[in-house]
Amino acid sequence: MWLELSAIFTQLSSDPSVRSIVLTGAGDRAFTAGLDVKAASEGLLSDSPEQPGLDAARRAAHHRRHIASFQDCISSIEKCEKPVIVALHGIALGLAIDISVAADVRVCSSDVRFAVKEADIGLAADIGTLSRLPKVVGNFGWVKEVALTAREFGADEALRVGFVNRVFGTKEDAIRGALELAALIATKSPVAVQGTKELLNYSRDHTVQEGLRYTTVWNSAMLQTKDVSAALLSGIQKRKPTFEKL
Amino acid sequence: MWLELSAIFTQLSSDPSVRSIVLTGAGDRAFTAGLDVKAASEGLLSDSPEQPGLDAARRAAHHRRHIASFQDCISSIEKCEKPVIVALHGIALGLAIDISVAADVRVCSSDVRFAVKEADIGLAADIGTLSRLPKVVGNFGWVKEVALTAREFGADEALRVGFVNRVFGTKEDAIRGALELAALIATKSPVAVQGTKELLNYSRDHTVQEGLRYTTVWNSAMLQTKDVSAALLSGIQKRKPTFEKL
Amino acid sequence: MWLELSAIFTQLSSDPSVRSIVLTGAGDRAFTAGLDVKAASEGLLSDSPEQPGLDAARRAAHHRRHIASFQDCISSIEKCEKPVIVALHGIALGLAIDISVAADVRVCSSDVRFAVKEADIGLAADIGTLSRLPKVVGNFGWVKEVALTAREFGADEALRVGFVNRVFGTKEDAIRGALELAALIATKSPVAVQGTKELLNYSRDHTVQEGLRYTTVWNSAMLQTKDVSAALLSGIQKRKPTFEKL
Amino acid sequence: MWLELSAIFTQLSSDPSVRSIVLTGAGDRAFTAGLDVKAASEGLLSDSPEQPGLDAARRAAHHRRHIASFQDCISSIEKCEKPVIVALHGIALGLAIDISVAADVRVCSSDVRFAVKEADIGLAADIGTLSRLPKVVGNFGWVKEVALTAREFGADEALRVGFVNRVFGTKEDAIRGALELAALIATKSPVAVQGTKELLNYSRDHTVQEGLRYTTVWNSAMLQTKDVSAALLSGIQKRKPTFEKL
Amino acid sequence: MWLELSAIFTQLSSDPSVRSIVLTGAGDRAFTAGLDVKAASEGLLSDSPEQPGLDAARRAAHHRRHIASFQDCISSIEKCEKPVIVALHGIALGLAIDISVAADVRVCSSDVRFAVKEADIGLAADIGTLSRLPKVVGNFGWVKEVALTAREFGADEALRVGFVNRVFGTKEDAIRGALELAALIATKSPVAVQGTKELLNYSRDHTVQEGLRYTTVWNSAMLQTKDVSAALLSGIQKRKPTFEKL
Amino acid sequence: MWLELSAIFTQLSSDPSVRSIVLTGAGDRAFTAGLDVKAASEGLLSDSPEQPGLDAARRAAHHRRHIASFQDCISSIEKCEKPVIVALHGIALGLAIDISVAADVRVCSSDVRFAVKEADIGLAADIGTLSRLPKVVGNFGWVKEVALTAREFGADEALRVGFVNRVFGTKEDAIRGALELAALIATKSPVAVQGTKELLNYSRDHTVQEGLRYTTVWNSAMLQTKDVSAALLSGIQKRKPTFEKL
Repeated sequence: MWLELSAIFTQLSSDPSVRSIVLTGAGDRAFTAGLDVKAASEGLLSDSPEQPGLDAARRAAHHRRHIASFQDCISSIEKCEKPVIVALHGIALGLAIDISVAADVRVCSSDVRFAVKEADIGLAADIGTLSRLPKVVGNFGWVKEVALTAREFGADEALRVGFVNRVFGTKEDAIRGALELAALIATKSPVAVQGTKELLNYSRDHTVQEGLRYTTVWNSAMLQTKDVSAALLSGIQKRKPTFEKL
Repeated sequence: MWLELSAIFTQLSSDPSVRSIVLTGAGDRAFTAGLDVKAASEGLLSDSPEQPGLDAARRAAHHRRHIASFQDCISSIEKCEKPVIVALHGIALGLAIDISVAADVRVCSSDVRFAVKEADIGLAADIGTLSRLPKVVGNFGWVKEVALTAREFGADEALRVGFVNRVFGTKEDAIRGALELAALIATKSPVAVQGTKELLNYSRDHTVQEGLRYTTVWNSAMLQTKDVSAALLSGIQKRKPTFEKL
Repeated sequence: MWLELSAIFTQLSSDPSVRSIVLTGAGDRAFTAGLDVKAASEGLLSDSPEQPGLDAARRAAHHRRHIASFQDCISSIEKCEKPVIVALHGIALGLAIDISVAADVRVCSSDVRFAVKEADIGLAADIGTLSRLPKVVGNFGWVKEVALTAREFGADEALRVGFVNRVFGTKEDAIRGALELAALIATKSPVAVQGTKELLNYSRDHTVQEGLRYTTVWNSAMLQTKDVSAALLSGIQKRKPTFEKL
Repeated sequence: MWLELSAIFTQLSSDPSVRSIVLTGAGDRAFTAGLDVKAASEGLLSDSPEQPGLDAARRAAHHRRHIASFQDCISSIEKCEKPVIVALHGIALGLAIDISVAADVRVCSSDVRFAVKEADIGLAADIGTLSRLPKVVGNFGWVKEVALTAREFGADEALRVGFVNRVFGTKEDAIRGALELAALIATKSPVAVQGTKELLNYSRDHTVQEGLRYTTVWNSAMLQTKDVSAALLSGIQKRKPTFEKL
Repeated sequence: MWLELSAIFTQLSSDPSVRSIVLTGAGDRAFTAGLDVKAASEGLLSDSPEQPGLDAARRAAHHRRHIASFQDCISSIEKCEKPVIVALHGIALGLAIDISVAADVRVCSSDVRFAVKEADIGLAADIGTLSRLPKVVGNFGWVKEVALTAREFGADEALRVGFVNRVFGTKEDAIRGALELAALIATKSPVAVQGTKELLNYSRDHTVQEGLRYTTVWNSAMLQTKDVSAALLSGIQKRKPTFEKL
Repeated sequence: MWLELSAIFTQLSSDPSVRSIVLTGAGDRAFTAGLDVKAASEGLLSDSPEQPGLDAARRAAHHRRHIASFQDCISSIEKCEKPVIVALHGIALGLAIDISVAADVRVCSSDVRFAVKEADIGLAADIGTLSRLPKVVGNFGWVKEVALTAREFGADEALRVGFVNRVFGTKEDAIRGALELAALIATKSPVAVQGTKELLNYSRDHTVQEGLRYTTVWNSAMLQTKDVSAALLSGIQKRKPTFEKL
C-alpha cells in the first residue's frame, strides 16, 4: 500500500493539472486503522527473511533496507511539489502521525485521537515522526512527552500546540475545510505556490544564510514567469488572474 | 531606500552611543505602504535591463544579483549588533514581514493587518520571509498556510502563534511599549546584550554542540569586561550600575 | 557540585536499573539558590588563576577551559540515555534555566519565578541557555525578550510559551506529577524509550533527511529486541508487558 | 540508458550474490562515446516539451526535474552498497567523469583522454562532476583549472593528482586489474566491506564528530556478525575464511 | 588598500566586459612586501583605539569588527563571479597566502618563497589562510606543519602538494602563463564559466547531496542560455563560437 | 591502556609547561603490536557482558557505549590543545592508523608497514580511521582502496599520498626528526600555536564562511597577547623571543 501511496504522490508531483492535494482516510472510525497488532507483528518481523542462522548484522542490514524504503514512501508526500493538506479524523495513531507531519497543513475533526504510539510496541517511531514532529511543533517538551509516553492527545491539545491548523466538528467538515483551503491555494500562481513550499521546506533544514542563497538562485528563474505580470495586471484591472499549469 | 536602511543599520551597529533600536513606520495607515502594484511591477521587471535578445540565463543572473543585494539590505537589521525592536501598525504586508522577522522583537497595534502577500503577485517571498519566519514562529503548519494562501492575519492571531510579543491598543501605544522595552535593554551591560543577541542568532542556525563551542570562545573574551564586577558590586550596594559604551 | 552532578548523570545513564529520572531542588524557597552575588563573583573571577601580568589572551584560554568544563557537566543531563524530568519551584534563575533546558520535560509549581538572569550581571548566559532555549521554545521573539531583559516570568507564561509541560499547585504536587510521568515512562520498553530520546535529540540538530538516515541505522539493531514481541503479545493477551533492563 | 544503469545498480546493491562490481565501457575507442553534438543538443533541448509560449520559469521547472532525475541515475552507483571499480579507457569526456567520481575506485589504461568537457558546450557540469570531483581529488586549483578550461588530461596526470588509483597499459589490462581488485575485495567479509564503503562516504560529507557518532551506531549492530569470529578463527588456523552472503 | 582591493573585485564581479582576472604583484622582489614588522605592529595594535581603561571585552569587540572587515575584503576575490588566477613571485608571506587561497588558480615563478608566517609574530592567521588552505591542499599533515612552524616552502614543494598549478621560470613567465590561462577561459561561455566557479565553491562547503540539489536549481535557469546552441552549432560547423557578455 | 592514554593527553592539553608532544611506540618491531588475534577476539567479544538471552538490541547498546568510549580516548589526541607529532615505525596496523590520524603530523621510518587492517577481521574500522583518514589524505580513491582491501602500504606510498610528512631511515631518525619538529614548534608563541591547531581542526569540519566567523571571535581575544609585541620587538632587535607558558 505504501508503495502505491508513493507512486501516486510522485505522479501528482509533476502532473500539470494538479495544483493542491487533500489527503484523507476512508471510513468513519479511523484515519489509520490503528495498530493492528497482528499486522504490525507480521510487518515488523517478516520483512527480513529470517533464515535460521542469519546473524544479527545481516538481519540489521535487512531491517535498514526495509525502513529506508518505507521512509521513502512517506517522504514522497513531502517531496511532492504541490501542497498537501491532510484531514484527520477518528483513530489516528502511529503512521497517521508519520504521514501527517510529511504533509504541509494538518486539519482534523473534533473526535480525533492522536498518539505517537510506537513506544507502546517496543520501538522508536522510525517512519518520520521523530525526525519531523519537532520541526512541525515548536514545543520540544511536549514532543518529548507524547513520544516517550505514547499517550493520546485530542483535537484541542493538537490545536493548542500547533500540530493542526484548525479543528472542525465532523470528518465531513474537516474534509470540506481542507478542500476549501486547497481550492484557495489552487487559485494562486503555481510558480508562487510550488516555490513557497520548496523554499519553506529548504529553510527548515538550513541556516538563514543558506536559505537566502538558495532563494536567490531559485527565484532568479522563477521571477521570469508570466504569472507576475498576469497577477499585477489583474490586480490593476480588479479581476481574477488565470495562471498556466505547471 | 533599502540601501539607505542598510547604511543606517550598519552605522548603528558599531556606533558606541547606541544601545538598542526601535524601528517603526511613518504615517497612520500603514507600516509598509502595501503592495503598490505599479511600483512592484516596475521594481520587479525593471531591475534587469532587459535588452532585447538577452537570454533567460543572463536575465536570471541579473535577477540573482538584484535579489542578493536586496536581501543584504534587510539582513543588515539582523546583523546589527544592537537589539532591534520593531513596532508594527496598520497595513503590514510583504516587506513588512521580511523586515520584522530580521528584527529581534516584534510588537504591534491592534489594527495591524499582516500578510505574506507575495504569492498573490505570482512569486515566492525572497527577501527573507520564507527563510526566517519558520525560525521565528514554531508552528510550521501555520507558516505554510499563511505563506501559501497569502491571507491576512491580525494582531490576536499574531500574538497567539508567537509572531509578535505584545499587542497594544494604538500605534502610539505600540511605539511607547517598544521604546520602554528598548530603554530597559539599554540599562543592561552592552557586553551582555550584544553577546546575547549574537549567541541566540548563532544558536538558531547551529546544533546545540556548535552553539556551546562558539559560546565558550565568545565569552572567553567577554567575561573579561569590567561590567561583571560593576554589576555585581552595584547588586551588593543596591544601586543601579553604569556601563561603558560599546 | 557540578562535577558531582555530572558524575551522577553519567552513572545513571548506563545503570540498567534506572529507567527514568526526576530532578528536583531541595528546600522550599528556591530550585537554584538564585544569583548569590558573592559566589558568582568568586566563581567568575577566581577560576583563572589571575597571576599578575597574565595577558588577556591567556586569561581567555583559562576562561574557555572553565566554561567548556562547566557546560560539559550540564550537558551530562542531555547526554544521559534515560529521560530526565525536572520539577521546578520557587526561585529558578540563571542556572535553573541552563539545567532545565538540558532535561527532556519541565514541570513546575505555580510559585515558580524564572529568569534568564545573566544579562543582569554583565554577561551572556554561557552554560547552555542561549544554545538550547530557542530549540525548546518555538517563539524566538519571546526567547530574545526574556534573555535580553533578564525579566522574570512565572508559571502561566512558562506554560503558554511551552517552556514547561504542566503547572502544579505546589512543589510537592509538581514532584508527584513528575514522578507519575517518570513512572509511566518506566513501564515502557527501555529500548523504545532510550531510542526515542536519542532520535528526538538527534533530529533537533539535523535536517529531516539526516534524521531519517540515522533512524534507519539506529532501528536496524533496535528492532531486534524481544521487547517488540513482548509488547505485541501482551497486547493480544490484554496484559501488561515486562521488559528487561537496559 | 541512464534509467537502465540505475535499475541495474539498484538491483546489484541488494543482490546477496554480488560482492563487488567492475564497470567498464564497450568498444575500443571510448568509454563514453564523447560529446555527440547532435545527441547532446537533442538531449539538452528536447527534455522540456517546449510548447510555444511556455515561460522561462516553467521551462526551468522542467529542466530541474530532468536534471534531478538524471543525477539520481548516476548517484545509484554511489548509493550501491557494494564497492564499484570503474575501468576507463580511450575517450572519456563529460559523463565519463560524472560516472567515475560516483564510483569508489578508478583505474584506467594509458590511452585514456579525460576532460570535464561541459564548459565547451556552454554549461556547468550538472550530473555530479562539480559536486564530487573536489571531494575525490584534494587539489582544488587543479579541479578548478580542468573544469574551467575543459582541457584534456591523460593517464599520468590523472594518476599524479589522485583521480585514478592505477594506470594500466591497455584497456584489457585495466579491466583485468579492476577485476583483480574486485576479486580481492570479494574475499573479505561483506559486513566489513559494505560498512567501510558506507562509513567512508558518510564521513566525506560530515564532521569528524558526526562521523564517529554514526560509526558507533552502525557498528553496534555490525559487530554482531559471525564474520568477526570466522575471520579471527581462520586467522588462528591460518586458513581462508568464508563469509555468508549479504 | 584592502578596501580598494575589495572595491575593485566587487566591480569586476558584475562588469560584463570582464571574463577572467589575473592578479599579480608589482615589483621584482616580492608579491607581498613581506612582514613589515613596523607596519604589522601598527596595523595590529592601532586598529582598536586603545583608550586607557578600555576593558579586554571591549578591545575584543574592536578586534572582531576589524578582523571581519579585513576578511570581507579578501573574500571579495572568492565572491567575484569571474575566475581569478593569481601569479605569485618572490617573497610571498602571510597575506600572500590569504589572498592566493581566495583565488581559483595559483601559478608561481621558481624564485617564490612562501610561508604561513603568522605564527612567527605570535598569532594564528586570521584573514583566511587557516580556513581555506586545508580546502585547497588535500594534505592535512603538510598544512599543519607549515602553519605551525611558519617555515618557508618553495615552488617545487608548492607544486608537489598542489598549492600551485604550475611553476614558471620567471615572474614574467608566470604572468604570461596566467594570462594565457585567463585568455583560454575567456573564450568559453561566461554562463558556463561563472556557473562552474560558483558550483565548485558551493560544493567545497556542502555535502554531495546538497551540491547536486543546488546544481539542479542553478542550471534550471542557466540551461536556457543561447550559449549552448551557439556552442553546439559552432562545434558542428567547426568554428569558434562567440558568446555574449555577462 | 586507552583510558590511560586519554588521561595523559587530557593532562598534557592544559599543562602550561608542555608546548608540543611527540608520540612514539616502544620496541623495535612495531608501533602497535599488530592485530593480536586473541586479544582482538577478547576485546571485541567480551566488552558486552553477554548474559545468555540478552537480545541483539541490548547487545548493540553495549557495543555502542564501548565504541563511543574507545573513540573518546583516541580523540583526546585531537582535542589536546598542543600539537601532537607521531613517529611511526615497523608494524603499524589498525589502531596505529586510528591514532595517527588523530595527531597533527605523521612521520615514519622507512621500515614501516601500514594497513587499515580492520576489514580483514570482519569489521569496518570504528575508532576513527574511516572518519579522519579521508580528511587527512586528499585522494579518496586511494583511501577507499586501502580501507576496502586492508592491504599494506609502506613509507614511500604513505609519503606520496600525503599520509606522512616525512620518511626517515630508522626509527631513531624518525623520533629525532619528530623531536626537532616539536622543538621548533615549541619556540613559537603558544598563543599562536594553539590557535593554529584549533582553527585548522575547526576549518576542516566547517564551511569557509563558518571558519572565518569562528576565527574572528577566537582572535578577538588572542590578539590581546603580549606575544605579538614580544615577537615583533625581538624581530626588530634580531633576537629570539621568549613567550610565557599557556
